[in-house]
Amino acid sequence: MSTNDHGDLASGPVCPVPISRYPAVLLAHGGGGKLTQHLIQSMFQPQFSNPALNALHDGATLSLAGARLAFTTDAHVVSPIVFPGGDIGMLAVNGTVNDLAMCGAQPLYLAAALIIEEGLPMERLWEIVRSMSAAAAAAGVQIVTGDTKVVERGKGDGIFITTTGIGLIPPGVSMRPDALTPGDRILLSGRIAEHGVAILSVREGLEFGTTIKSDTAPLHRLAQAILRAAPSVRVMRDPTRGGIASALNELAQSSKVGIVLREDRIPMAAEVHGACELLGLDPLYVANEGKLLAIVPADEAAQALVAMRADPLGLEAVEIGEVTSEHAGIVTMQTGIGGTRVIDMLTGEQLPRIC
Amino acid sequence: MSTNDHGDLASGPVCPVPISRYPAVLLAHGGGGKLTQHLIQSMFQPQFSNPALNALHDGATLSLAGARLAFTTDAHVVSPIVFPGGDIGMLAVNGTVNDLAMCGAQPLYLAAALIIEEGLPMERLWEIVRSMSAAAAAAGVQIVTGDTKVVERGKGDGIFITTTGIGLIPPGVSMRPDALTPGDRILLSGRIAEHGVAILSVREGLEFGTTIKSDTAPLHRLAQAILRAAPSVRVMRDPTRGGIASALNELAQSSKVGIVLREDRIPMAAEVHGACELLGLDPLYVANEGKLLAIVPADEAAQALVAMRADPLGLEAVEIGEVTSEHAGIVTMQTGIGGTRVIDMLTGEQLPRIC
Repeated sequence: MSTNDHGDLASGPVCPVPISRYPAVLLAHGGGGKLTQHLIQSMFQPQFSNPALNALHDGATLSLAGARLAFTTDAHVVSPIVFPGGDIGMLAVNGTVNDLAMCGAQPLYLAAALIIEEGLPMERLWEIVRSMSAAAAAAGVQIVTGDTKVVERGKGDGIFITTTGIGLIPPGVSMRPDALTPGDRILLSGRIAEHGVAILSVREGLEFGTTIKSDTAPLHRLAQAILRAAPSVRVMRDPTRGGIASALNELAQSSKVGIVLREDRIPMAAEVHGACELLGLDPLYVANEGKLLAIVPADEAAQALVAMRADPLGLEAVEIGEVTSEHAGIVTMQTGIGGTRVIDMLTGEQLPRIC
Repeated sequence: MSTNDHGDLASGPVCPVPISRYPAVLLAHGGGGKLTQHLIQSMFQPQFSNPALNALHDGATLSLAGARLAFTTDAHVVSPIVFPGGDIGMLAVNGTVNDLAMCGAQPLYLAAALIIEEGLPMERLWEIVRSMSAAAAAAGVQIVTGDTKVVERGKGDGIFITTTGIGLIPPGVSMRPDALTPGDRILLSGRIAEHGVAILSVREGLEFGTTIKSDTAPLHRLAQAILRAAPSVRVMRDPTRGGIASALNELAQSSKVGIVLREDRIPMAAEVHGACELLGLDPLYVANEGKLLAIVPADEAAQALVAMRADPLGLEAVEIGEVTSEHAGIVTMQTGIGGTRVIDMLTGEQLPRIC
């Protein structure tokens, strides 16, 4: 078959997403919720099936030349491109550093591909480039290759940045999203929902007395500290798009276990809580960019928490719940008033273009 | 310094691109010509300075765990997203495979990040995903990780695909853009300008009797054949954006040598020649997506050509010129009528969004 020939593609297998229901891609297909999951599981995974992809990690784990590498990519389309606490350049670097960190890897090298809309002020590009450079230096990674494309006005939106990273996974590290075991503890590194609320506040022009800043930060040092303190850690996740609710739902489904959260334990800034009420958002579904979830066996939970609290990015780390054998695949929360509610995957999109 | 704090960025160093002349990013900054080169050299390289980036290859060469890896990224924004001979999915896979191949690497793993405009027909997405899958299988690479984002209508253009690749560089391979030596021969694997003309024909709704197809194809097997036949090969390039003229200008500048081309030796399909005349394009500057340039020492040129012609993608390989000590940094061409003309870097943009 010539590679220039579409050949049987035109008459190939039927689209696995029901066209009658979803004739076109919706914003929600990129939101990190149920529709994103469906698109990935029904369309992408069967086509690109291979062991590395099927691990369903934040990135792929590759064996190469006797070493284990983590390899991960993220397209950043956040709007606005500059926001309280950061900008798209910093977010693009930290986001990929964090995906590598969640694979247990030491982040080493990044590639950056820029898609710029014609008319982006040159000073703004310069600011973003310096921000990427500063974030890379802070995280101790090198941006070693890149690409720049420019599209016409109205065919892009300022700038999109795709960052792809390579990291080295130390020997002995083994984390899997399907490894959760009843009795495991759910640890969270700090206050939730700050990134999403910071972005939305700017978009909506809201003021909350004090400016709520994005929590964007590189989590690899915190992750490595957890791995040292709790070597049996099952898995780590940085709860970005879809918040801690989506991340925990994915893990509960992968491991076929239940997860019970304690509402009163989940840390949140008062102004973030207020902003979420005003905006009608459930903070459990709002994106974080500098927090991680670690699921650890009960007997390593205390030492993991000590290690987390010793890191500047984990000062407020807490245990927020545990893994159960009941209600497999479902996340529930014991509320402050003594009830229990199901924390489902979102079908739609709460906040488009949050990262 | 807190990573959440812009701090001194706002009052930082002056933008290295003169704002009075270029207050905003132009389409030409992404065209692969002089303005792209200036943006990279003045803004990106000083900020991201590191040995791997500074090698100015199509990708970075990394030492990791005792192995040498090639690492390369490309944002694909081609318009239209389906064109004669291929589509954006096939192009995205082949483009990154080719960048790895030009580093002398065996391509192994790809990451794919999709930025979809809301409203893209689901069937179109499905077609593109199958096309990526088929191209990956044809090239023998695995797509191991990915990301999907969706932006609002009017904030994107159908779909953009950033592919990033990892390849393994066999021991002994050493190619550098600054290694060209007077007397070296310039070899070209086949007919030029087919991809760019195919894209533009569709955009402009032109007909040339026969349909001109993109030459998109994976070049790694051809590249490896050249490396085996001509182990001293100085460097290889796939002349995409900016065509063979831009690729050779970059090499002449990096190596501080002259390059003399022979117009009558440069292979081109008659209909491509006709289309270029009609469209007012110089085919030397028009993008290829399945051709390579190999610069080899004179005493290995014959054996390299034999090897190239034994590959299905190099049947029409020819020597099109040589490296000289005169006119360092400049590419000239001996024309069919006996004259000589300078083949300069383009300042502007011939064909935006060609890849």
